[in-house]
Amino acid sequence: MDIIKFVKKNIRGIKPYEVKKSACKIKLDANESPFEIPEGLYNKYILKSKDIILNINRYPDPEAKRLKEVVAKYYGVLPENLLQGNGSDELIYYLLVVFGGPVLYPVPTFSMYGIISKALDEMCVEVPLDREFDLNIDKIFKIIKSHKIRIIFLSIPNNPTGNCFSSEKVLKIVDFCEKRAIVVIDEAYQPFSSKSGYIPLLDDYKNLLIMRTFSKIGFAGLRVGFLIGDGNIINEVNKIRLPFNVNSVSQSMLELFIKEKDFVNRNIKIITNERDILYKKMLKINGVKPFRSEANFILFKVKDSDSVYNKLLDRGVLVRNMKGILDGCLRVTIGKPEENKLFIDTLNNILGNKNIFN
Amino acid sequence: MDIIKFVKKNIRGIKPYEVKKSACKIKLDANESPFEIPEGLYNKYILKSKDIILNINRYPDPEAKRLKEVVAKYYGVLPENLLQGNGSDELIYYLLVVFGGPVLYPVPTFSMYGIISKALDEMCVEVPLDREFDLNIDKIFKIIKSHKIRIIFLSIPNNPTGNCFSSEKVLKIVDFCEKRAIVVIDEAYQPFSSKSGYIPLLDDYKNLLIMRTFSKIGFAGLRVGFLIGDGNIINEVNKIRLPFNVNSVSQSMLELFIKEKDFVNRNIKIITNERDILYKKMLKINGVKPFRSEANFILFKVKDSDSVYNKLLDRGVLVRNMKGILDGCLRVTIGKPEENKLFIDTLNNILGNKNIFN
Repeated sequence: MDIIKFVKKNIRGIKPYEVKKSACKIKLDANESPFEIPEGLYNKYILKSKDIILNINRYPDPEAKRLKEVVAKYYGVLPENLLQGNGSDELIYYLLVVFGGPVLYPVPTFSMYGIISKALDEMCVEVPLDREFDLNIDKIFKIIKSHKIRIIFLSIPNNPTGNCFSSEKVLKIVDFCEKRAIVVIDEAYQPFSSKSGYIPLLDDYKNLLIMRTFSKIGFAGLRVGFLIGDGNIINEVNKIRLPFNVNSVSQSMLELFIKEKDFVNRNIKIITNERDILYKKMLKINGVKPFRSEANFILFKVKDSDSVYNKLLDRGVLVRNMKGILDGCLRVTIGKPEENKLFIDTLNNILGNKNIFN
Repeated sequence: MDIIKFVKKNIRGIKPYEVKKSACKIKLDANESPFEIPEGLYNKYILKSKDIILNINRYPDPEAKRLKEVVAKYYGVLPENLLQGNGSDELIYYLLVVFGGPVLYPVPTFSMYGIISKALDEMCVEVPLDREFDLNIDKIFKIIKSHKIRIIFLSIPNNPTGNCFSSEKVLKIVDFCEKRAIVVIDEAYQPFSSKSGYIPLLDDYKNLLIMRTFSKIGFAGLRVGFLIGDGNIINEVNKIRLPFNVNSVSQSMLELFIKEKDFVNRNIKIITNERDILYKKMLKINGVKPFRSEANFILFKVKDSDSVYNKLLDRGVLVRNMKGILDGCLRVTIGKPEENKLFIDTLNNILGNKNIFN
């Protein structure tokens, strides 16, 4: 008997989120922070965490109370405006379960909005970005009305394009949706942006929700993201949150580490500096067109992108091939200074240019 | 404007899974293991885990490859028969997303089957257990046919009743469902049972899936559960698994700890011994009717259960009040020997009996 017949039809066609694992010297594919936990912080954690680890036989705090207090201060909000997730991914699941579709998001963007919508059999409408990778607001308004859109995802800065959408357009959308739909601004990359984020807008718009994550600023392995919004809406989403969704160790480790603002902020500063240097260098390479970025990665267009991707990998540099999403483009995560240097030299070398950076 | 109007109707009425937090001296309410990680094992972990913690800036292994290899050996299956979850809770979510409802489960049972079904707006049919807390198989067969049930959850041993359903009945259901529905046997409490589990049955029935968790045998804080089943079905569920659902620290810690079979098995042995001693003692207390258990807890009936619950808590002993689920019943998790002694003495004392155990 074909066991697949038990699987819901909408699931059968789904392709899972692919995480390619390739052996490489430098890993610049996943928008992680390149900076390990320093020894001093490690020792501090080991000293403070013994009880947590010894008591791993107990369930985690389902409310993540202590962590939420620290995170609330970090974001300048109140604990009751926060909902903890096992990464932002889980929060996307919850949002779609609570509000349902139809779902609208611009493309290209973070692929999980579409993957999870499809898993939950919610209708998705994908609206292409314009040539400047900005929002096509007229089309979006039209579709919100015609399709009775219930939830909109906006990744700002947008992954994989790296830009922030025009804040004027974003405001118009949030305002237009006030009585129509939930707008979720995914600020995963906000810490790297020169523009201020949308948390202050939460005071004015109850239909606005913001997602933040600790995965891009140094703690991807812990899997912790937060939804920020009006207390009433947070309560509704909390109803369907799995009670123990953030484990004990991640709660305690993150609680300690985000108090180390110097460590976190210094790394962000290094990355944004490096990004701006890398962008300028990429502009100088013949055959490479980088896009200006407000995130911890740079999207770039290159002739024969598949071949460049493979040649980089042959030389130990793993980037992300955007084939099928933005053909002809690759995305490089900002690494440590020496990694970025190796990347740019290798790229320059592959493209047959003289070494212009030494 | 009422922001709640954006929330799907099926969500509005949901009551979240409640985790009561009460200050207490001994915590016998959550079916956790009472045994902390011993110092020796802690030191071993700290020695081996340094690299994992330092590299928390990287995403976890999405496939949990190393952990799955160890777990596969532990269960006597192959890694391709395993799917990792952020606790079994997350696996229930995934199963309902992939197979959909209508959902059938006997009651009383683990409340998350119902809570998650309702969150996902799937129809649930709850079939009461018979007077021996066993399955009402005729009624179940009838409903499977009349309601076109797609997925059945059986917790064996059952929480909160503690018994194993008759294996003859379970086999009949799995067989009856072979071409009709997915049967999920939740073996969270199997390690404490004198009866063998259903993993060997997976060879014969592709519509059978088994859930196991590490939460009851010492590692609740880590949040790791596994789905075990046919490789093709596991692949389908894997399509909608969030790629980084089990964090790095939980992966590495569990990998190390489950290799420590002596530690894990000794604790299980102590708990089952203690359970059997406690059961016999409870039988001797006037006004208490304990039910025989194959799990790490004992359900018991007592007059004025609310009052007994509160008096236990006043004296620092936290158990679970089953009010609304099994009125008149309380559920006590097996603790350390000294905790069990304190519990039974306190219970005996509350019920006004002479001290019969000293």
